[in-house]
Amino acid sequence: MYKQRLFAPGPTPVPEETLLELARPMFHHRTGEYRKMLETLTGNMQYILQTHQEVYTITGSGSAAMEAAVANLVAKGETMIAVRGGKFGERWSELGHAFGANVVDLDVEWGDAITADQIANALQANPGTVAVFIQHCETSTGTACDVQAIAKAVAQTDACLVVDGITGVGALPFAMDEWGVDVTVVGSQKALMLPAGLAFIACSDKAWAKMDATTPPAYYVDLKAYRKSLAKWDNPWTPANSLVRAALASTNQIRAEGLETVWAETRRRAEATRAAARVLGLELLSSSPSDSVTALHVPEGVDGAALPKTMAEAFGTRIAGGQAHLKGKIIRFSHMGYLDAFDVLAAVAALEMALGRLGATVDYGAGVAAAQKVLAKE
Amino acid sequence: MYKQRLFAPGPTPVPEETLLELARPMFHHRTGEYRKMLETLTGNMQYILQTHQEVYTITGSGSAAMEAAVANLVAKGETMIAVRGGKFGERWSELGHAFGANVVDLDVEWGDAITADQIANALQANPGTVAVFIQHCETSTGTACDVQAIAKAVAQTDACLVVDGITGVGALPFAMDEWGVDVTVVGSQKALMLPAGLAFIACSDKAWAKMDATTPPAYYVDLKAYRKSLAKWDNPWTPANSLVRAALASTNQIRAEGLETVWAETRRRAEATRAAARVLGLELLSSSPSDSVTALHVPEGVDGAALPKTMAEAFGTRIAGGQAHLKGKIIRFSHMGYLDAFDVLAAVAALEMALGRLGATVDYGAGVAAAQKVLAKE
Repeated sequence: MYKQRLFAPGPTPVPEETLLELARPMFHHRTGEYRKMLETLTGNMQYILQTHQEVYTITGSGSAAMEAAVANLVAKGETMIAVRGGKFGERWSELGHAFGANVVDLDVEWGDAITADQIANALQANPGTVAVFIQHCETSTGTACDVQAIAKAVAQTDACLVVDGITGVGALPFAMDEWGVDVTVVGSQKALMLPAGLAFIACSDKAWAKMDATTPPAYYVDLKAYRKSLAKWDNPWTPANSLVRAALASTNQIRAEGLETVWAETRRRAEATRAAARVLGLELLSSSPSDSVTALHVPEGVDGAALPKTMAEAFGTRIAGGQAHLKGKIIRFSHMGYLDAFDVLAAVAALEMALGRLGATVDYGAGVAAAQKVLAKE
Repeated sequence: MYKQRLFAPGPTPVPEETLLELARPMFHHRTGEYRKMLETLTGNMQYILQTHQEVYTITGSGSAAMEAAVANLVAKGETMIAVRGGKFGERWSELGHAFGANVVDLDVEWGDAITADQIANALQANPGTVAVFIQHCETSTGTACDVQAIAKAVAQTDACLVVDGITGVGALPFAMDEWGVDVTVVGSQKALMLPAGLAFIACSDKAWAKMDATTPPAYYVDLKAYRKSLAKWDNPWTPANSLVRAALASTNQIRAEGLETVWAETRRRAEATRAAARVLGLELLSSSPSDSVTALHVPEGVDGAALPKTMAEAFGTRIAGGQAHLKGKIIRFSHMGYLDAFDVLAAVAALEMALGRLGATVDYGAGVAAAQKVLAKE
């Protein structure tokens, strides 16, 4: 018997207290009780995004909030830049095409981070660009970019910066207002310690000015409808109100712990995992590794598809493999959600044991010890 | 102390067994375990919709599935007919406008049902119409229309019939394939006995032929992406997988009970409520009352806003009031979801007691007795 441990980059483990909220009797959403919940959740999300702007709660996957950003901000025929350094960067590009934008793809090697200079050059080469779409952390490669520097570059133009913070916000240091990010998109099933089903989005004054001048080919994700409803602490469409109630439990916990502490703990889990990987001889895929997700090359001679499968089936430890051309070549560990130091040790131990089962020469405990060394520090 | 009882037309009460599913530990969605769940849920939904077509599970409100129907089926500039007999009919029209359709509004008095003849005439007057959008039950007025007759009329043209079954499917007799309905839309928080957060949609071959020839301004609700993913029992975007697991519990329960039984029980709850209303002197709003939602005029001399408020605050019984111009003029009782005969008696008793508190002359127990008489029949 193995406990089931989730280290895939979403859904992440959910605290028991939050799960119990989900088991409470159904309640009505057109009530003062619900409006108070939505008000508190909005405040918690403003704290987590570090913004004074309203944060809208969408019933949907993170992709629904990504669609909201593209559809509300970029009119048909307008130019947008999509940074493609992985599967989720490709999603920005696909969304742009779906809504008839003139999409400029800014491709970077999967595992490399886009730089502020590259963005500045692309903006210069494409005058009239209305928005730049990036990932804070590209989940498919475990790569983080310097959002603060990029925001500074974009702020010097008329373009808006849209950040997919789905595997960033709540895990990596992020300050929407201070950095000058125009639109931030978040999903519930990552650092927020919640099931999938809610997405969040916030917009700067600059983004609102553009959106107010744009008629979106959208209804369900029309952000003007969300703004109008939130004035009465309401959602435009029937909300997943039991998820909203659960979201209070998890975000209250984040507030109580403090965002800096959560960021530092996530970072420490990432550092411990990287230290273990180093002594076990597993190389990082990324030249700019994120502290929310670690992507590691599968060692020579080990079956790359069998490694996550063995970890899951033999040891109850669910990590992720690679996507697209990285399928079978990398493994990915999430450091987000309801995890502690000893969960990290379990994951490293499971990695060692699965490598052993698959015929690799393993110095059992070496990775665990390296991780412990990091985790033992005050 | 009063137990909280939900008689609003969504969210409806959820069975305890389903709530407990929601409290189980989070799990991963790219697994054989989840694919099996989605396969079973899809089968259950095919049974509930009475269709052999695939049923797609969208993470979102019912409105997301309504958007899917409009965006995938009606290209910009094409003509669609939206039957507006209430707030949700208006939503079809608004969706059409949002996506640039040429919307023909077919207005009926709120509380009246659209007829097959009216639809046939509208189709004749608007050649080239690609789709007709109706509600099986218009939730805002508790009005059901004859979907079978309407489908027969629409089938004689090139247009597709789209049915909002959000407060119909699982509550009212419905047979998508046999009746020739082209698109059916369902939400989770009504007759399916689930929290809000999932929506379902199924399409006929005729609808698919039109959709395959249409490039939708859509991404999140692009049904071709759902079709492609379902071939691998997968969702195109991260699904609300804990809701999917919960949906199995509720839909398995519906299958076990049998759809005909569920329909008959819903009908009996509606009949009991109507019988009670009759003896209490509360008139039906609708000339074609639905068995899923009953809308009643607030009696003369009773404060129409205070009635649902008193029922909720003094007696823990949550019903709905009227919307738009019916605000303060009607009250609405749902008969959907996890309710039994004695819940109906409680609701009727609460109505009597609230009427009494608000100064009406009430023959206590008369409504309860009338309801009992209906509910006592074998």
